[in-house]
Amino acid sequence: MNSSETRTGVTPADFDAIMREKVPFVGDMGVRTVSLSDDTAILRLPFNERHLRPGNVITGPAIFALADIALYAVAWLVVPKADLAVTTEATVHFLSGAKPGDLMAEAKILKAGRRLLIAECHIRSAVDGSLCAHVVGTYAMPPAEK
Amino acid sequence: MNSSETRTGVTPADFDAIMREKVPFVGDMGVRTVSLSDDTAILRLPFNERHLRPGNVITGPAIFALADIALYAVAWLVVPKADLAVTTEATVHFLSGAKPGDLMAEAKILKAGRRLLIAECHIRSAVDGSLCAHVVGTYAMPPAEK
Amino acid sequence: MNSSETRTGVTPADFDAIMREKVPFVGDMGVRTVSLSDDTAILRLPFNERHLRPGNVITGPAIFALADIALYAVAWLVVPKADLAVTTEATVHFLSGAKPGDLMAEAKILKAGRRLLIAECHIRSAVDGSLCAHVVGTYAMPPAEK
Amino acid sequence: MNSSETRTGVTPADFDAIMREKVPFVGDMGVRTVSLSDDTAILRLPFNERHLRPGNVITGPAIFALADIALYAVAWLVVPKADLAVTTEATVHFLSGAKPGDLMAEAKILKAGRRLLIAECHIRSAVDGSLCAHVVGTYAMPPAEK
Repeated sequence: MNSSETRTGVTPADFDAIMREKVPFVGDMGVRTVSLSDDTAILRLPFNERHLRPGNVITGPAIFALADIALYAVAWLVVPKADLAVTTEATVHFLSGAKPGDLMAEAKILKAGRRLLIAECHIRSAVDGSLCAHVVGTYAMPPAEK
Repeated sequence: MNSSETRTGVTPADFDAIMREKVPFVGDMGVRTVSLSDDTAILRLPFNERHLRPGNVITGPAIFALADIALYAVAWLVVPKADLAVTTEATVHFLSGAKPGDLMAEAKILKAGRRLLIAECHIRSAVDGSLCAHVVGTYAMPPAEK
Repeated sequence: MNSSETRTGVTPADFDAIMREKVPFVGDMGVRTVSLSDDTAILRLPFNERHLRPGNVITGPAIFALADIALYAVAWLVVPKADLAVTTEATVHFLSGAKPGDLMAEAKILKAGRRLLIAECHIRSAVDGSLCAHVVGTYAMPPAEK
Repeated sequence: MNSSETRTGVTPADFDAIMREKVPFVGDMGVRTVSLSDDTAILRLPFNERHLRPGNVITGPAIFALADIALYAVAWLVVPKADLAVTTEATVHFLSGAKPGDLMAEAKILKAGRRLLIAECHIRSAVDGSLCAHVVGTYAMPPAEK
């Protein structure tokens, strides 16, 4: 799997720059793009002690931030300039406590319509591979470029 | 509405300390507790330019973080030591772009069961009062203290 | 509150006919439109013993059917011919067991955009007024008539 | 995959009887259990013209009913007498219109905790295999038998 397979030509380096410049809230968390393919984006959130909460697990909002940006990456796989794609809704299920360590997000297209993109994201611990969270969300897509 | 009305005795100052000490990810965002009552928690997220995203609106994960901590505040209204209350799922609908400015979260109990707390949260812009997001979530509650 | 207040002119009698003719699955359940106003639809599901499930409460899918059709009624409050409005997603929280008896649904607009309608619905027991379920859903709206 | 593999011993014939006797709302729809394994339940909803809605597609509540009962089947894979397992919440995304024809539901465990079961369900058209809907839901599980 490498970036040349993406339909829009977006590469992991491109999306790393997009996060840092356009979405600094997650850019500042240090999220990195691991790989992008035709319909899937894989991102990594490095561990940060300030993401912990009682129970010594990673706090829900940090996990949600990773999932949301992974879904945004998927929007960039579908349309060339997805800056203005916006989440309209998302549902997150927290499945097991995320141990201290990096987290991996794998987001995948469920439906790519002209106006709506529906995608799901699995969040796993990079420590032991356990499934920590599942997110399904909808993005309202910007009109196609003329 | 003032803190003496809370069933568990938790005050806004208490919950401000809880956020800073126990959930630094949101504590670092500067969220403050405005008021707590019998079944409702009102919190405020101060504006931060780094929360903006394309379209000049506040990014979804920052809004979700505010909603999630407001739902956590509600858990502290229900049981005295809710440290270990954990979100099991949450659904967020983004209703309108949140303009640059502070955000207000009002979280309210829908059902307080022995094991599950279900609550909703409305997020409004402090600039113009517009409704920006609606969240419904479930917390798994820790066993009652003996 | 009466039907003359609806923006599209749709009346409770109109929507009763729409359910029977266009959505027989819920029409056959005997759902009736109680009132329609500018942004709110109130519908009633008559009790049917075959809707019960273990625990002597009304089964989730019957409650969901009532909520979904109430959200559809709201779509008819927003555009004149909403036949082709389709649910894109919905989240239901079941808050307390619905005792044998009629159920009331009150659906209300959260956001009426050009393309998406987001609305919520509270389901209450007509027996004792208790809140049984809360639903938030999105409808993709048909293009405006020319 | 056959029924002898289920941890609780429940067989497709058992679950067909459970639906007919305990959940007549879906029993009356003619849902049948295709197979049950360790963590997955596959059920089939036979086509019925009265399930159609405008656009000549199967109505959302019929699809939700199929998904909800498939999630209930999964609860019976986890505990021996799951009569009183109740859905606490479910999120459904409708991904493409379900053409006239039978529907298949495949429900699978995401997390089986002592108190909560979280499972997802994919709904496909038996006509052409297209993915019509995705559901994630939570069941509150009854206490273990003594």
